[in-house]
Amino acid sequence: MTAAVLTIGTELTRGELVDTNAAWLATELTQLGFDVVEQRTVADDPGAIATAIQQLAARTKVLVATGGLGPTTDDLTVKSAAQAAGVRVERDPAMLEVIRRRYASRGRDLSEGAAAQADRPTGSDALPNAEGTAPGFAFELDGCRCHFLPGVPREMKAMFDAQVLPRIASLGVRESHQIHLRTFGMPESEIGARLDGIEADFEGVTLGYRAHFPEIEVKVLARVEGDAARAEERAREAAAEVRVRLGDLVYGEKDDSFPGAVGDALRRKGAQLAVAESCTGGMIGELLTAVPGSSEYVLLSAVTYANAAKTVILGVPTDVLRAYGAVSSETARAMCEGARRLGACDYAVATTGVAGPGGGSEEKPVGTVWFGLARPEGTVTMRYRFSGDRDQVRTMAAYVALDLVRRASLGLDLDACRAHSRIERRDHPAPSAPPA
Amino acid sequence: MTAAVLTIGTELTRGELVDTNAAWLATELTQLGFDVVEQRTVADDPGAIATAIQQLAARTKVLVATGGLGPTTDDLTVKSAAQAAGVRVERDPAMLEVIRRRYASRGRDLSEGAAAQADRPTGSDALPNAEGTAPGFAFELDGCRCHFLPGVPREMKAMFDAQVLPRIASLGVRESHQIHLRTFGMPESEIGARLDGIEADFEGVTLGYRAHFPEIEVKVLARVEGDAARAEERAREAAAEVRVRLGDLVYGEKDDSFPGAVGDALRRKGAQLAVAESCTGGMIGELLTAVPGSSEYVLLSAVTYANAAKTVILGVPTDVLRAYGAVSSETARAMCEGARRLGACDYAVATTGVAGPGGGSEEKPVGTVWFGLARPEGTVTMRYRFSGDRDQVRTMAAYVALDLVRRASLGLDLDACRAHSRIERRDHPAPSAPPA
Repeated sequence: MTAAVLTIGTELTRGELVDTNAAWLATELTQLGFDVVEQRTVADDPGAIATAIQQLAARTKVLVATGGLGPTTDDLTVKSAAQAAGVRVERDPAMLEVIRRRYASRGRDLSEGAAAQADRPTGSDALPNAEGTAPGFAFELDGCRCHFLPGVPREMKAMFDAQVLPRIASLGVRESHQIHLRTFGMPESEIGARLDGIEADFEGVTLGYRAHFPEIEVKVLARVEGDAARAEERAREAAAEVRVRLGDLVYGEKDDSFPGAVGDALRRKGAQLAVAESCTGGMIGELLTAVPGSSEYVLLSAVTYANAAKTVILGVPTDVLRAYGAVSSETARAMCEGARRLGACDYAVATTGVAGPGGGSEEKPVGTVWFGLARPEGTVTMRYRFSGDRDQVRTMAAYVALDLVRRASLGLDLDACRAHSRIERRDHPAPSAPPA
Repeated sequence: MTAAVLTIGTELTRGELVDTNAAWLATELTQLGFDVVEQRTVADDPGAIATAIQQLAARTKVLVATGGLGPTTDDLTVKSAAQAAGVRVERDPAMLEVIRRRYASRGRDLSEGAAAQADRPTGSDALPNAEGTAPGFAFELDGCRCHFLPGVPREMKAMFDAQVLPRIASLGVRESHQIHLRTFGMPESEIGARLDGIEADFEGVTLGYRAHFPEIEVKVLARVEGDAARAEERAREAAAEVRVRLGDLVYGEKDDSFPGAVGDALRRKGAQLAVAESCTGGMIGELLTAVPGSSEYVLLSAVTYANAAKTVILGVPTDVLRAYGAVSSETARAMCEGARRLGACDYAVATTGVAGPGGGSEEKPVGTVWFGLARPEGTVTMRYRFSGDRDQVRTMAAYVALDLVRRASLGLDLDACRAHSRIERRDHPAPSAPPA
């Protein structure tokens, strides 16, 4: 059963306002089992509004339109909808009385503009508005049930629930089920290659990919005509196969966050974490502490941007900085071991790199990042090379650092994280004694 | 001159993603002088995409479409656009080579999905993508110039500026001029009240407000029919009046960033900064170091989330933590003075508060944040109470801390920052000797 959403207003077509109504309505309609095939936004122009109504009514079974209802001269939806349906506009006396009382209760007279809110296309049903003065209306055109609501989100939502939903709920066919798997550690094209053939193996299953940099969400959608339970089962089977093929790249499902998954891994292990950041500038701490309750496992993040800070706070020897530079295995090692000592905790992770756009060299080009992971059993340092701008390099570096912590806490393979960006790995024994 | 925007993707029609590309493109096209008559969103369905392209091309002179270009099987824009134009799809050998090199530079082989990104409709022009692997393309259909870009906002915006703009700029009719002023420190309704009457005083000028939490952007739009120079002059005059009325709440213009303005203030003063963060968890450091070149003035940020970290790193006395608690004037003072000592620098700022959702008490409710600002002439501590969720409280706290640094560096009134959220201020002399 198909549906469409039409939003009306020049403030939308000019981009002065981001249209949140369309996405809200699309979500509601999708959840009711409709297949939302189109959203359209048109300016306050009667011809354009009428054409859009006719085209969408011809294509779909349910149309929900918002905007252009109200007391001002740019409110043209009633006139345009009547034009689309080939009927006249008439004033609804009952609705006029409702509006008159509403104005009177605030001590205001009814202007012609206000009164015109009682107008609607001949033969349409009125949709009362409990939250505002402009009512909506509904009619059937070309076999499509068309509903017109005001654009104010609060009024629109209340009217959708109270007026539209009861009129269309029985039309929706729930025959699809969707599972969202969240991944980090592999680019979209490689994930696509790994999942090749699943759509052929599981009838009715479609895979979708959504990039929230640097994560990739894999959406497993199953459709089985008229059989919601079978669709859910099919989606679960296909999602299980996706999990098998992606392994520990999948860190969670729909509403899980990556920093939350890292926190869960630490909490399960009963471990606490200290962080030492250079190129990520605080992003690792910020991501971790955005999770409520993170004080259980996050002790500190020493953002040692200047070399002097690395020495004063983390005890990175000036010799090391002089001999190897800030972006080196030796500095990354000293940073994470220093942070682990400061926090007196199980794990510490460090980043030091060249985020760009300046500061790169032939030996250490922009995008080079050294990571250090200090654990009870010893320290691992790894060199990666990321591409992208400053923000992307920093974000990728923060995620890789978090993933190293997640993998260490869960006992997973450290080498599997963004392997294609990794250049080298070095293993070091645990410090036998606190450095001087 | 008319234009339309088409966004493609089932994640949009299902409402899983709010479409920000459409509003961004509509704003750009409007500013170029186009009349954006329609935005349309269709699902990943070749027939629907092709129909939308044909209908929009028939109605307008410029079409910009985004989405559905990429390496996976749900990327159907190339095929659908070719269908709309009645041409075939061919693989562009030059673009294939660009994509192959891009993959090779990361040590990756070219899968068939990746290679298919070099496909485009016969006779179309390639639009290179400097930020990603999927190129776009352009062709003329029915007298309409049609442009197809990827849906990733960063790539789409860069390609619009570099590829689309030069192709269409001469078509727009410029009779308007817009100036964007960026502000922090006052809510939208108060800014609106301060600017009341400007639209009446300056003919043809409209003020617009756009909230990018926690900033408010004021847009001064002047229109003078057929006279771009006069429009620009009118916009400048009105913007000057806006600046007079808002004073130091205006920190910059269109592309300026708030952390960048803080950095400019520090650089002008020749000063360096150390940060001590508790409730902001690294956000202040992250915001500051997102600015290229920030290593000139950012030395460190000590994210001391646990009390023990406050003592070990910043030297906050355990007595102070015990007697006053972590969220107190005394702790904020010890934190910023400790950070200033660590950095051996001019300024240090500290945050310690209750970001929520848990952790609040009657005395220190969620949203309570103490700030400390250590300067050569002494330390100021301030208590604020912010409303909103955890993320909003943290973001507002990070901005207020940055604004304190900006105001101190520029010699501006410290009290003017988010004055309505401030509860108290205490002034302390500079520490006479380093604490034990």
